[in-house]
Amino acid sequence: MARTGRRSGVSGSSERILAAARAAFAEAGFEGATIRGIARAAAVDPALVHHYFGTKEQLFVASIELPFDPSELVGAVTAGGVDGAGERIARFALGVWLDPGTRPVLVGVLRSAASDERAAATLRGLLERALLPAVHGLRLDHPELRASIAWSQLVGLFFGRYVLRVRPLVTVSPEALVAAMAPILQRTLTGPMRPGA
Amino acid sequence: MARTGRRSGVSGSSERILAAARAAFAEAGFEGATIRGIARAAAVDPALVHHYFGTKEQLFVASIELPFDPSELVGAVTAGGVDGAGERIARFALGVWLDPGTRPVLVGVLRSAASDERAAATLRGLLERALLPAVHGLRLDHPELRASIAWSQLVGLFFGRYVLRVRPLVTVSPEALVAAMAPILQRTLTGPMRPGA
Repeated sequence: MARTGRRSGVSGSSERILAAARAAFAEAGFEGATIRGIARAAAVDPALVHHYFGTKEQLFVASIELPFDPSELVGAVTAGGVDGAGERIARFALGVWLDPGTRPVLVGVLRSAASDERAAATLRGLLERALLPAVHGLRLDHPELRASIAWSQLVGLFFGRYVLRVRPLVTVSPEALVAAMAPILQRTLTGPMRPGA
Repeated sequence: MARTGRRSGVSGSSERILAAARAAFAEAGFEGATIRGIARAAAVDPALVHHYFGTKEQLFVASIELPFDPSELVGAVTAGGVDGAGERIARFALGVWLDPGTRPVLVGVLRSAASDERAAATLRGLLERALLPAVHGLRLDHPELRASIAWSQLVGLFFGRYVLRVRPLVTVSPEALVAAMAPILQRTLTGPMRPGA
């Protein structure tokens, strides 16, 4: 598509709407956020929000498509094979969480998913698209169960660190958290699935 | 306190209010639930809810005090020492989750904590009171970090199974989930905290 002066103005509104939507979903969750409030924060007419993004659910999906590219995770995890996969997942997760551009988006996704079934379905889809293929690339036994336990650990950790802000999860350094989580994730991916086995 | 006919009627209202509050917090989260709606569901006047329980936050705290006694967990985990502690924690957690009386309460707590700082503080307190003392009883190194990672795993697993309802977490049998989680929790409690160490 050709870029014109007008086009660039349109794209500016669209970016402002997405930024306002991310802030609103992070602050108020899916149910609490309103198209009207998002439009006000973006200094546009609510009709323009609907015109660009459709329903609130579609706007939510658009607003969370940005934090990271799932294919990056797949590459980062599978590139080095099974050895060290736990550490690579932990590092990738912490990298995404420490990025001030993506963390509020993820907080918003988690808050929204906790209170709204459509947002939960979106997060389910995001997790399935992001982590399952990465784990499949490692050719493990029970890949779905291992992948879903691994991402539940990351969701729980993110929730504890950034939503509940519980000590010491919130005070421990990222490096120490990677060091603690890497062997646990590695165990989750590759260890025996029976206790004591 | 002496039990009289009148007292028992009062206690009936109080029980109905707590039950309605649990249902409301589970359904709508802390912010979405209202004293008015809870009173209506319990067939009492809103003033009676305030009279018995004070603010909405106090009602929330009262409504989540019931799911289990933290001292039970401490006993269940520490009684057998370090060996098998991961499996005992996994079994205790699944037992609480499978109980149809406690699961909706926990779903409500999690939903509320995700969207409301006061509810998050309450859940923080619950987790700290429940799991930290149990892990302290095991006399491990880094008890706070290990305990907080362990409960973040349980929170993430509960979130994945009962809120997001993601497969295969939601379809796997409780026994298989205990079998999968026990060695991971054991590793979290007792394994080296440095990757490769």
